Amino acid sequence: MKYEITQIGLIRSPYKTKSECPIQGAAAPEGIGRIEIFPQFSQGLKSIERFSHLFLIFVFDRAGDTILTGKPFLDDEERGVFAMRHPRRPNSLGLSVVRLVERRGSELVVAEIDVLDGTPLIDIKPYVPRFDARECAGSGWLADKEFREKPPNRE
Amino acid sequence: MKYEITQIGLIRSPYKTKSECPIQGAAAPEGIGRIEIFPQFSQGLKSIERFSHLFLIFVFDRAGDTILTGKPFLDDEERGVFAMRHPRRPNSLGLSVVRLVERRGSELVVAEIDVLDGTPLIDIKPYVPRFDARECAGSGWLADKEFREKPPNRE
Repeated sequence: MKYEITQIGLIRSPYKTKSECPIQGAAAPEGIGRIEIFPQFSQGLKSIERFSHLFLIFVFDRAGDTILTGKPFLDDEERGVFAMRHPRRPNSLGLSVVRLVERRGSELVVAEIDVLDGTPLIDIKPYVPRFDARECAGSGWLADKEFREKPPNRE
Repeated sequence: MKYEITQIGLIRSPYKTKSECPIQGAAAPEGIGRIEIFPQFSQGLKSIERFSHLFLIFVFDRAGDTILTGKPFLDDEERGVFAMRHPRRPNSLGLSVVRLVERRGSELVVAEIDVLDGTPLIDIKPYVPRFDARECAGSGWLADKEFREKPPNRE
């Protein structure tokens, strides 16, 4: 089956290029972004200001061709694309947790942003620790990897 | 902008109807499901067995018409759709955290499942506590709500 999805807004961030962009927002808490929700969807933001953290679902619109296996940014071994957060994935959807700083009408100011400036937004969901926090979760192949702040240069 | 997304697999669960389905998997850890990845995508599972928890992105294919505000399952006040996890949302995408029990070839056995049987799968991402766990996050309007195991009957 195929489905059509529609952009609901635009993500603004300080990162214009992939080499500037942190691998994960948790590693760059100082990265402040703005989420501009298109006017026809802004009613959907009602009560959002009461949450501290949000999930953003967005399109990796500058990722390049899809891969099924490849080298993650944090590793030098081949992994399956569903075992990593790599952008070149089937359906090109990205998922990030951000911290909500402030709502200004149909715009959200967020911290811990880790996406490229101009990224198309597809959905926002509230982060609810009761549903989403799993401190006890394992880290898979990442468990023994040293954290890299930036992707290695492999272009 | 519009984008086309393609189903990569099928989610099997014990829940045939909305009234059987738990609101969140964390509330029904005994719910065991199976994720069947279509053969053309199964290579993407390499190394996934090393993770304990996964994000599933799927299509709410039986949600009904989209709303921008409505009453969440856990509340009786109107909230914006981006301030709740309600299925009747723009782009109809759902997000769940599940626990990976076992990989059997191109099939994953998972616990804490909270989706309807036959739900189309769009993406799998590893859950990495370093990136995704925010125990300290607030719970927004859910903070003072008593947990309901099942959605109220409002049909």
